[in-house]
Amino acid sequence: MRSFLFVPGIRPERFAKALACGADAVIVDLEDAVGAADKGPARQHVADAAAAFAASTTRVLLRINGFGTPWFEGDLSLLALGGIDGVVLPKAESATVLEALARVTTKPILPIVESALGVWQVLEVAKGPGVERLIFGSVDFELDLDCSGTWEALLYARSQIVLASRVAGLLAPVDGVTVALDDAAQLATDASRGRSLGFGGKLCIHPKQVAQVNAAFSPSEEELAKAREVIEAFERAGGGAVSVDGRMVDLPILLKARRQLAVVGCESSGEEGRVVTGSDCADEPRIS
Amino acid sequence: MRSFLFVPGIRPERFAKALACGADAVIVDLEDAVGAADKGPARQHVADAAAAFAASTTRVLLRINGFGTPWFEGDLSLLALGGIDGVVLPKAESATVLEALARVTTKPILPIVESALGVWQVLEVAKGPGVERLIFGSVDFELDLDCSGTWEALLYARSQIVLASRVAGLLAPVDGVTVALDDAAQLATDASRGRSLGFGGKLCIHPKQVAQVNAAFSPSEEELAKAREVIEAFERAGGGAVSVDGRMVDLPILLKARRQLAVVGCESSGEEGRVVTGSDCADEPRIS
Amino acid sequence: MRSFLFVPGIRPERFAKALACGADAVIVDLEDAVGAADKGPARQHVADAAAAFAASTTRVLLRINGFGTPWFEGDLSLLALGGIDGVVLPKAESATVLEALARVTTKPILPIVESALGVWQVLEVAKGPGVERLIFGSVDFELDLDCSGTWEALLYARSQIVLASRVAGLLAPVDGVTVALDDAAQLATDASRGRSLGFGGKLCIHPKQVAQVNAAFSPSEEELAKAREVIEAFERAGGGAVSVDGRMVDLPILLKARRQLAVVGCESSGEEGRVVTGSDCADEPRIS
Repeated sequence: MRSFLFVPGIRPERFAKALACGADAVIVDLEDAVGAADKGPARQHVADAAAAFAASTTRVLLRINGFGTPWFEGDLSLLALGGIDGVVLPKAESATVLEALARVTTKPILPIVESALGVWQVLEVAKGPGVERLIFGSVDFELDLDCSGTWEALLYARSQIVLASRVAGLLAPVDGVTVALDDAAQLATDASRGRSLGFGGKLCIHPKQVAQVNAAFSPSEEELAKAREVIEAFERAGGGAVSVDGRMVDLPILLKARRQLAVVGCESSGEEGRVVTGSDCADEPRIS
Repeated sequence: MRSFLFVPGIRPERFAKALACGADAVIVDLEDAVGAADKGPARQHVADAAAAFAASTTRVLLRINGFGTPWFEGDLSLLALGGIDGVVLPKAESATVLEALARVTTKPILPIVESALGVWQVLEVAKGPGVERLIFGSVDFELDLDCSGTWEALLYARSQIVLASRVAGLLAPVDGVTVALDDAAQLATDASRGRSLGFGGKLCIHPKQVAQVNAAFSPSEEELAKAREVIEAFERAGGGAVSVDGRMVDLPILLKARRQLAVVGCESSGEEGRVVTGSDCADEPRIS
Repeated sequence: MRSFLFVPGIRPERFAKALACGADAVIVDLEDAVGAADKGPARQHVADAAAAFAASTTRVLLRINGFGTPWFEGDLSLLALGGIDGVVLPKAESATVLEALARVTTKPILPIVESALGVWQVLEVAKGPGVERLIFGSVDFELDLDCSGTWEALLYARSQIVLASRVAGLLAPVDGVTVALDDAAQLATDASRGRSLGFGGKLCIHPKQVAQVNAAFSPSEEELAKAREVIEAFERAGGGAVSVDGRMVDLPILLKARRQLAVVGCESSGEEGRVVTGSDCADEPRIS
C-alpha cells in the first residue's frame, strides 16, 4: 500500500479510471471535494458504484464527512456496502470518534491527523479501536497551525505521526498530498523525503502522480542489491559485526536488509508478528 | 502584533524612542537588562513613565523578574499602572506561577518559554490562566540545554511551542531575538523562517530591527495577490477543487487565502471565533 | 566524557588497545557484537580482564544483554567486578527495568534509547533510578521505525532525547555511531551536528574514530577565545547588555561563556550544582 488516490464522490465518471490507474488504493471522497448541495448525490454515486468497487482488485476506501458535521451519520450507512474496504476519517483528534465508528463497522479505519490537537494527541488516535494506519493531512494542518507547507515547518508533525504509529503497532502512515500537479521533481522529492522519515505511502490527487509514488515507496534495485550484499557478508562472516563497503554492519543493519528483501517477497525477515510496510515485487503478488 | 521591542527599565531616556519607532509592542525590561543594584531605580523609571506609556498608541508590556527571585513580589505592584498593558513572565515552566500572577492582575500574560522544562511542559504553560500568547526565549533555552543556536538545534522547541499555542487556542507565539545587530540578511532569514513555522511575531533588541520584522510578519503583496487569485478561481468554479497555476486548490487552501485577506482587513475569513494573527494593513486600522 | 568506544566482549585481544587509544570510556559489549553461542565465553573474557580494567584510567562500561533475553540475568553478576565502572542497558523503554537493575547495582546506568517506544517514553527512562546519562541507539531506532538514517529523519528523536536528559537533570546524552569507518568528513559532520543539538559525546565503533570525536566535543580554541572576549566585554561594561563583534550579549550569553571556560578548568562558571558536560583541558585534569 503505497499510493492512495483521491477521487471526488460527485464525479462517478472518474471512478473507473481511478481504479485502473495503478493506485494501491482509491479514496472516494465525500468530504472536501463535495460541496454541501452535492452530499446526497455523491452518496448515491457511491452506492451505484459499489458492485464495480467490489469487482476491482484495487482497494476502495471511503472518506466520510467529519464527526460533528450534518453528514457524518448519514455517511455511515455506506460503510456496509460490499465494495467499500475501509473508511478514512477526517479531523481525527481523539479516540472518542474512533470508538463510535468502531461500533458501526469492523472495516479498517484510516484516521487523518490534520490539526494541532490531532498531532498533539496522535498516540491516542493511533491506539483507537479499528485503526489500521494514520494519514497526515498536511494542507489542513498547515491551515490550522497557520504555518507554511515547507519540510521544516512540518517536520515535527510528520516525525511525531510516524513515531506514534510505530508505538501503537500500526502500519507505516500515509503522507499528505503534493499539490503541484505538473511538477514531477517536487513530487519525487516529497515522496522520497516522506519515505525517508518512515512513511509507507502517500496521498495522490491525480492519476498521473500514482506511478511516481509507487516507485518512490518501493525498494530500488540498488537498495535490494545492497541488502543482499549485507546478508551475504554476514553469512560469510558467521555473525558478529562485519564491514561492507567501508561501513560497519551489525545486527540491526542485517535485520533491516532482511526486511527489505522480505517486503518484496524474496526472503523471510524472521520478524514474525511484526507489521511490515506493504510494497510490491516485480511479477509477484503484493504482500499486504 | 509582530514586533516586540525590548528596552531596559534602567534606560528611561530610551523609552520615547522605543515607543515611536514603529514597534507593535515595547517590552520594558526589569529582568536581564537590569543589574541587581539597579532593580529599584528601574522600577521608579517605569512608574515615572506610566503616563507617557498610557498616552502612547504603542502597546507597553513589562518584563518582570522571575518567580523565586528577590524582585518578583515587588515588581508586581507595577502591574496596576495604567500605562502597562500586559506582563511578560520569564522562565515560565508550569501553571503554578501563572495562577499566582492571575490572582494579582487581569492584564494579559505573555510567558517566556526558555528552558528544557518549559518546552517539555509548554502545553501546561499555554493553558495557564490569563495567557495571551507565548514567547520563545531562544538564547536562554540554548544556555539551559547547552545546545547551539542553529535552526536545526532549536527546531523541535520552536515547533512544539507553536503547536501547543494552537492547541491552547492562544495567539500565534513570538519568536526569540536575532542577536546580530547589523546583519539585515540574518534578521530577514530568521524572521522568515519563524513565520514559516507559525510564529506571529518576533522579539527585537534594537529599534533598527523593527521595520524588517514588521515587514516579514505581514503578508507580502505577492501573497495577497495569490490569495485573491485562489478565491476568484473558487468563485468561478462554484466550489470543489480547482487548479490554480498548476496547483490543486481545495477547501483548506481557500480558507487560508480568505484568512490572509481578512488579516489585512479586506475580506471576511468566515472563521468566527477563531484567533487570527494580528498584522497590519496599509492605511487601515490594525485588527487584533 | 566525549568518546565511548565499543569493543566486542568476545575479542579480548582488542581490550588493551581499546583502553589505550584515548577514548574517555570503553564499552565492552556482550550484546549485538556477540553471537548466542559466544555469550558464555565473552562473560569469561570480561571476568578475566577485570583486573586490567580496574588498573586502567579509562572508564570501562559493560553493555549487557537486554531485559527479556536469556542472558540478562547472567550478565548482571559481572556488574560486581571491580573493573566495571558502569552498565549500558540496551532497549530501554521504561523505568521498570531500570528499577530492577538499580536493585542489583549502585553503579551508574547508561540506558540506550533505540526504539519508537523508548523515544516516546524517554523522560520516564531518563528519570529512572541510577541513570547517569542516555545514549541514542540510532541504528536500532532506524530499524524499529523503518526510517532512514538521515539527520532529518532522526532530528525529532535526537532533540527529544537531549531535552528529556536536561529535564531529568542528567549529563548530556551520547549520540549514536557513524557507521562509515573511513569517512572522516562524515564523522566530523556527524559529531559537530550532534554537539550542536546538545549531545555531550558520541559512540565510536573503531579506535580511529576516537581522536576526532574527542576534538569535536571539546571547545575549540576559537570558541574559548570568543568566550573570553564576552566575559571581558561584560566586565569592562560593568554588567547589562553589551555588543561584542556586532552581536548583543546579555546574561545568558555571559553565563554560557563562563561555562565553556569552566569546562576546560580555566574559570568558575558560578553554576554550583549544575551538571556540566565533561570535556578535557590541555595538560589539566579532566573535570567530570
